[in-house]
Amino acid sequence: MPIDHVEKQEKEDGKESYQVVEQGSLPPWAADAELTVVGKRHPRLEGPEKVTGRARYSYDIHLPGQLYARVLRSPLPHARIIRIDATAAAALPGVRAIISSETTPDIPWYEESFLFDPTVRLIGDEVAAVAADSEEIAEDALRLIKVQYEALPFAAHLDAALQPDAPRIHKDGNIAGEPQHYQRGDMDAGFREADTIIEQMYETQTALHNSFEPHGCLATWEGDQLTLWSSTQSIWTVREEVAQKLGLPAHHVWVIKHFMGGGFGAKQVPWKHDVIAALLSKESGKPVQLMLDRRAENLASGNRNATRQHVRVGARRDGTLTALSARIEIETGAYQVGGEASDVSGMYQTLYRCPNVQTDQKAVYTNTGPAVAFRAPGHVEAAFALEQAMDELARALNMDPIELRLRNYAEDDQKKGKPYTAPEALRLCYTQARETFGWPTGHQPVANGPKRRGVGFAAHDWAGGGGKPPGYASIKLNNDGTADVVTGTQDIGTGTRTGLAQVAAEELGVPLERVALHLGDTASGAYSPASAGSATQATIGPAVRAAAADARRQLLKAAAPMLEEPPERLVVRDGTVCVVDDPSTSISVEEVCGRIAPHMIMGQGARGANLEDKSIRTCGAQCVEVEVDVETGEITILRVVASHDCGRIINPLMVESQVIGGVVQGIGFALMEERVVDLKRGVVLNPNLEEYKIPTIADMPVITFAPIDLPDPEANPTGAKGIGEPPLIPTAPAIANAIFDAVGIRLRHGPLSRQELLPALRQQAASGREQKEQT
Amino acid sequence: MPIDHVEKQEKEDGKESYQVVEQGSLPPWAADAELTVVGKRHPRLEGPEKVTGRARYSYDIHLPGQLYARVLRSPLPHARIIRIDATAAAALPGVRAIISSETTPDIPWYEESFLFDPTVRLIGDEVAAVAADSEEIAEDALRLIKVQYEALPFAAHLDAALQPDAPRIHKDGNIAGEPQHYQRGDMDAGFREADTIIEQMYETQTALHNSFEPHGCLATWEGDQLTLWSSTQSIWTVREEVAQKLGLPAHHVWVIKHFMGGGFGAKQVPWKHDVIAALLSKESGKPVQLMLDRRAENLASGNRNATRQHVRVGARRDGTLTALSARIEIETGAYQVGGEASDVSGMYQTLYRCPNVQTDQKAVYTNTGPAVAFRAPGHVEAAFALEQAMDELARALNMDPIELRLRNYAEDDQKKGKPYTAPEALRLCYTQARETFGWPTGHQPVANGPKRRGVGFAAHDWAGGGGKPPGYASIKLNNDGTADVVTGTQDIGTGTRTGLAQVAAEELGVPLERVALHLGDTASGAYSPASAGSATQATIGPAVRAAAADARRQLLKAAAPMLEEPPERLVVRDGTVCVVDDPSTSISVEEVCGRIAPHMIMGQGARGANLEDKSIRTCGAQCVEVEVDVETGEITILRVVASHDCGRIINPLMVESQVIGGVVQGIGFALMEERVVDLKRGVVLNPNLEEYKIPTIADMPVITFAPIDLPDPEANPTGAKGIGEPPLIPTAPAIANAIFDAVGIRLRHGPLSRQELLPALRQQAASGREQKEQT
Repeated sequence: MPIDHVEKQEKEDGKESYQVVEQGSLPPWAADAELTVVGKRHPRLEGPEKVTGRARYSYDIHLPGQLYARVLRSPLPHARIIRIDATAAAALPGVRAIISSETTPDIPWYEESFLFDPTVRLIGDEVAAVAADSEEIAEDALRLIKVQYEALPFAAHLDAALQPDAPRIHKDGNIAGEPQHYQRGDMDAGFREADTIIEQMYETQTALHNSFEPHGCLATWEGDQLTLWSSTQSIWTVREEVAQKLGLPAHHVWVIKHFMGGGFGAKQVPWKHDVIAALLSKESGKPVQLMLDRRAENLASGNRNATRQHVRVGARRDGTLTALSARIEIETGAYQVGGEASDVSGMYQTLYRCPNVQTDQKAVYTNTGPAVAFRAPGHVEAAFALEQAMDELARALNMDPIELRLRNYAEDDQKKGKPYTAPEALRLCYTQARETFGWPTGHQPVANGPKRRGVGFAAHDWAGGGGKPPGYASIKLNNDGTADVVTGTQDIGTGTRTGLAQVAAEELGVPLERVALHLGDTASGAYSPASAGSATQATIGPAVRAAAADARRQLLKAAAPMLEEPPERLVVRDGTVCVVDDPSTSISVEEVCGRIAPHMIMGQGARGANLEDKSIRTCGAQCVEVEVDVETGEITILRVVASHDCGRIINPLMVESQVIGGVVQGIGFALMEERVVDLKRGVVLNPNLEEYKIPTIADMPVITFAPIDLPDPEANPTGAKGIGEPPLIPTAPAIANAIFDAVGIRLRHGPLSRQELLPALRQQAASGREQKEQT
Repeated sequence: MPIDHVEKQEKEDGKESYQVVEQGSLPPWAADAELTVVGKRHPRLEGPEKVTGRARYSYDIHLPGQLYARVLRSPLPHARIIRIDATAAAALPGVRAIISSETTPDIPWYEESFLFDPTVRLIGDEVAAVAADSEEIAEDALRLIKVQYEALPFAAHLDAALQPDAPRIHKDGNIAGEPQHYQRGDMDAGFREADTIIEQMYETQTALHNSFEPHGCLATWEGDQLTLWSSTQSIWTVREEVAQKLGLPAHHVWVIKHFMGGGFGAKQVPWKHDVIAALLSKESGKPVQLMLDRRAENLASGNRNATRQHVRVGARRDGTLTALSARIEIETGAYQVGGEASDVSGMYQTLYRCPNVQTDQKAVYTNTGPAVAFRAPGHVEAAFALEQAMDELARALNMDPIELRLRNYAEDDQKKGKPYTAPEALRLCYTQARETFGWPTGHQPVANGPKRRGVGFAAHDWAGGGGKPPGYASIKLNNDGTADVVTGTQDIGTGTRTGLAQVAAEELGVPLERVALHLGDTASGAYSPASAGSATQATIGPAVRAAAADARRQLLKAAAPMLEEPPERLVVRDGTVCVVDDPSTSISVEEVCGRIAPHMIMGQGARGANLEDKSIRTCGAQCVEVEVDVETGEITILRVVASHDCGRIINPLMVESQVIGGVVQGIGFALMEERVVDLKRGVVLNPNLEEYKIPTIADMPVITFAPIDLPDPEANPTGAKGIGEPPLIPTAPAIANAIFDAVGIRLRHGPLSRQELLPALRQQAASGREQKEQT
C-alpha cells in the first residue's frame, strides 16, 4: 500500500514535521463467529523448531573462520583509566584483535561518554575487547590486559547519589535528564475535600531481565557491508544506530534476528556489543561472535530500575477520590541507555477518575548497571505503590477494594482529554476477575493452625492498539496456493509469527498451515518498530491484513475468468474461491495460483494512521489468594485469577500463555527477584542465576486466565491491541494486598520478603500476647 | 505492480491457459547521453566480497552439528542392483544416516526411473548416500557399502546406441523424446536452383561445464520446513521440484543462494543431491552438507552433448542461398534431465535468409553422463557446423565469407514470421567486427618459416530481451535515502547485482553506491525465472525499473509539501529532488526520507508482457587470427575481435568481461575441452581438471570487444537484451575457418586438435612434395 500523500504539520515546538498518509484502509472484521483462523487456539508455528533445538539463535550462527570475543569490564564502580597495556594479550597465540580506548576512535555513546570511555562508571563498564580463535583464549587474553585505574568515589544507591557532596557521576550532575512534573486540578483543594488521606512511601527493587538468550551478536563484513546477527528486539534500531556510529549508509548494514530467547525490553535498544563485534571483525578480517555471559548480562545490559514512591491519596467517605499525588525517585544506574526511561508517573494520571492529580518524577544516576525498559516499565513499579495505596484506602474507608475501584472508574483518558475506544473494558476485567475468583464479600481471612489465608486485588492500565504507523507487510502467493508473508518485525518469543500468520490466513481465506511468516531481516522486510510496548500484533497485524487483502483482490481477479464471474461476485473461504451466492461454483486457491504460475500474486500493505480523537487503553485486574505461615514467614501463592483486555484475541492459547507467563514473572518480582549490591564496595553480589532467584515451577500456583475478548475495531482494523507486557503489572501489589489481608502486615518494600515479614509477625505476635496478657 | 487482470486463452492443443496482465508500463529511457548510472563502467558491487574470500558460497555455510554427505555412485555404465548391504558402513563410528533404494521410498525421477533406481545407467549414477561427522568418514563408509550388481550390456556412444541390437537404455528405447522435424519451402526445388552445394558432416564433442563451485547444497529441517542453501541457477525451480518430490507445500521449502561460482547452465535444473541431502538431514536430524567433488561433478552433473550434424547448403553463383538442410544427432547421455534439451536446429532456421530449410534432429540415449544446457546450448554446436559450412561455401564460390553472409542477411525472423525489433543489429556486428579487426580483402594467409597465419570469421544469432513475464522486484527507501532492492533472482556470477542496481539507481535518481541489491532467497524475493537464457538483466531489469519508478513517484509525493510544489513539477537527479525548471529549489533524497522516517517508501514492480508482433534477437560476429605451425601442428590464437549485440549496454565493463569470458570458453571448446570415454569399458578417462584441459591465461590471445550498443526499447523498457551466453558461440567455427585459411586443412571434428591436424599437414606436405616432384 504505497504512500498516498504527505502532510506538513507544525509541532508544538515550532518545528516542521510531516505526516505520511498511506493509501486505503480496511473495514473491521465481521463478528468473531464468522472468523475461521483468528480467534482459534493454534499452537505456535515455530514450536517444533524450538522444542527440537533446531531454531537458530544468535549463538547458533557459525561462519567459517569465526572468532570469539570477550569484553574486559571494569572491576571498579567508578574510576579513571590511566593506562591500558595489551602487549601480553596481543602476544597470546590465537588472539586476533584487541580494541580499547587506546586504539579505537572516540565513538560518542551515552551522555558525554564514548564507546570505550576513559572513565568507567559501573562494575561491568566496557574497557577493552578481544577476539580470538576460541572463547577460552579470549578469556585468557582478558586476564593478560593490564589496566591501571585511578579509583574515584562512587554512589551505588539513590540516597548516596542525592547527597549534596555525592560523587559526580556525569558532568551535569547526578540527575538524569529533566525532572518531570505533571499536574491537573488543585491539589490543596482536593486534599482539603478528603475525609480520609493515605500517605505512604513504597519502594521497588532493582530486578534483572534474565532472558534465556543473553545479549550478543555475530558480526561479519563483506567489503564495506556489515552483517549482524544480533539478539535484538529492534533490528531496525540496531541497523540505524550501528550505521550511524560506524559512519555507514543504512543499506550497508544488514541485521538479522530469526529467533530470540527473550528480551523483555532489555533488547529494544542497541548496545555497545554490536559495534564492538563489528570493530573486532573489521580489525581481524574475520567474523566475530560476541555473546555476553550471564555475569556481563546481569551487570551491564540493563535492569528494571529501583524506585521510591511517596504516595498521597485522599477520598471522601463514600470512596470518591479527591486528590492523588506521587513523588517518584528512579535509580537509573550509570547511564540512560535509551528506550523509554521507566515512566512511573503515567498510571497515577490515568488509572482512576480523579480531578486533582500531581506527579513529580526524577531519575538519578548511580554507579550501577544502567536501567532499561523491562516488561511494562514504570507500570509495574507504579502499580506496586498505587495499588497498595488504594488497598490501604479501602481498608481505611472499610470498603471492598473492588468497590472502591468501581467507584472511581475512569471512563476516559484524563491525561489526554479523550474518550477511550473501549471504555468498558476495565470494568469487565474487574467483574470478570471477581466472579471467576469468587471474590469474598466482606473481609474473611482464613486461619488453619499457623497458616493464614488472605485475598488481594490489583488492577492496571496500559497503552495499546499498536504504535502509530508505520507497519508494513508484503505477501506472495506461491504456485501451490501457499503464502509467504514478509515483514520486518521480530519475534522476541511472544509468538509473533503465529499471530501474524493467523491474520494473513484469515484475510486470505486459506488455512493457517498454508501461510509462512517471515521476519527478522532488514534486507528482506520493511521497517518495523521495535518489538516493544506490547505493540507488535497491533502495529504489524493490520499491515499484514492489508497486504493479504491486496493479494486476495488480485486472487479474485485471477479467478474471475476461470469461474466466468466478475471478481466482485467472488469470495475466498477455507482455501477455495467461490461465487458468493453459489458456493458450488468454485475453484481452489491452489488451482488459481497454479494456473497463472509462474506469475506470482504479490500483495502489499501498510498500517493506516492512528485515531486522533480517541485514546486506546488495555487493562487488567488480578485476584490472588495467599497463605502465610505466621511461624516461619513463608508466603505461598495459592491461586491467581487474571483478567486482561487486549482487544480481539487473535489466538486464545497464546494469549493465555502470555498471561500465565506474565503472572509467573510478577510472582518472581513480588517475592524473590532482586539485584543485591554491596553498597560499601559497589559490587553486585548476585549477577548470576544461582544467587539471583527467579521462580521455578515449584513456586507456581494455579493461574487462571479469565479473558474478556472484546474486539476493539476503533483501535485498528484487526481489533487486537496487544498483551505482551501487562499481565505482570498487578501481580505484586495483589500479593502484597493479600498478605495484608491474611496477617494484617503491610509490606511496602519489594520484594515482599520473609526477611521483613517475619520480624513484623513476631512483633505482632508479641503485641498480641501483650494485649491478651493485658485483658 | 499488482495484477491488473487475467485473460483466458485457448492454446493450440485446446487446453485453457491464462494470460496475466500486470498493471502499468514504463516508457523507454531517454537517450544514453542523459543517463547517469546506466551505461557506465561500474565495477561489480560484490567484487570486494569475492576477491577477499568473504562471499559465502554453498561450501561456506556451516550450521551447528552439521554432517557431511557423500554419494556412492555406480562403477558400471549399465547394471542392475541385486543387493545393497550397508551393515558395515552403518556400524562405522561417526556415520549418522545411510539411504539407498533399499531404504528410501521410490521417488520418481528421470524417465521411468527413481531417485535411487535399481538400474544404474551410467558410471556415476546414484546408488546410496551417507551422512557422517566428517567428509572422510563419509568416504570411508561408502567403501564399506557392499553392492552386488548384475552388469548389463551398454552403449557409450551414439553409434553403439543406434545399432539395431543396441542395449536398451530406457524402456521405450534409445531415442530420447520425439525426433524434431522442421521444414519451410521446397527442399528439392531449392537444391535444384543451386549452382554450388556443400555437403559435409561435422561433429562436436562432449564438453564439461567445470564451474569453479561444484553442484551441491546444505539441507536442514526445522520441523517440517526445509531450508536448502543450494548451488543453483534457479532457486524457484529447486523449491518447486524439491517440494513436489518430498510432498511438501511450497512455503515449507526455503531455498537460498547468495553467491555462486558459476553454473553455465548445468545448475538451471534441480538435481538429485538436493533431495538426497534433505532426506539425509531428515533421517539424521542434523543439517547435511552434500557438495559434489570434481569427479562426481564431471561424471554425473551434466555436460554439453556431443552432436553429429550432416549439413547440406546450396547457393547460386552470386552467393544467394537456395536451400539449407541439417540432419542432427545428439548424444544426450543416460537421461533427459530437464532444462532445454540442446536444440541444435534453431540457428539453421533463422541465421540466414533462405526460403528452403529443413532440419531433422533426434536425441539418443547413451550410458554416459546426462547432457544439460551449457552456455548457449545448441547454438554453440550448430555454429560449429553451419559457420564452417558457410565458410566452405564462400570458398567454393570464391567469395569473401563476410560478403556471403551479408548477401544472405535475415531481416526478419523467418521461423516465427515476424520482424525483428532491431533488424540492423547483426549487420552492425558484421561490419563492426570486420572494421575493428581490419579484415583483409581477398585471401592472404601469411607464412613465416613453418608458421602459417590465417583469419576466420563466424557469426551467430540468439534470442534475447528477457523471457516472458514474470519478473518482480520491490524496493525500500531507508531513512538515509539509501535503497534496498529485493528480487528473487540469482547471480550466477555474471554480475546481476550490479546490473540491476544500476537500473534501480538510474530510475530512482540516486548514485549507484546508494543502492543495495538483494537476491537468491525464495523467502524474501518474489518469483524469478532461472538465471538462464541470458535473460536475467532483461527479465528482472524492467521489474526493478518499475519498482524504482513506483518508489520515485512516492518520493516526489513526500517531497512535495517540503518544497511546496506539486509532485508533478519535481524530478530526482543525482540524489536530489528538485523543481524541474528550478534546480535551486531542492532537497536531498536523504532528507526527504529522513523527515518521513520511520515511514518507509516501498515500491513494487513487475515486468510488462512481451511484444507479440515482433521477435527479439541478439547476435554477434567474431574475427579470429591464428597461427599454425605446420611442423608441429601447434595452433596459436593470435587475436580475436568480438562484436555482439545485447541492446542497451547497462555496464560496459561487465559486458566486455562477459564477452571476453565467452571467447575464452569458446577457445577452450575449440581447441582442448573434451570428455574422453573409453568406449569398450564405458569409463570416462578424464573426469577431473588434470586430464580434462581448460584454457589458462597462457592460451589467451588479445581479445577485443567491439560493442555496438544499440538500445532496443521495443524489447523491454530498459532496452537491454542480455549477453550472458552468446559470446562463445562463433569462436570455435571462426578458429576452424582461420585454420583452413592458414593451412588449407578443414577440421570438421571438435575439438580442433593437433592429433587430427598433424597427420593432415604431413599428408599435405607429402602431396605437396609429390606435386613438386611431379612438376
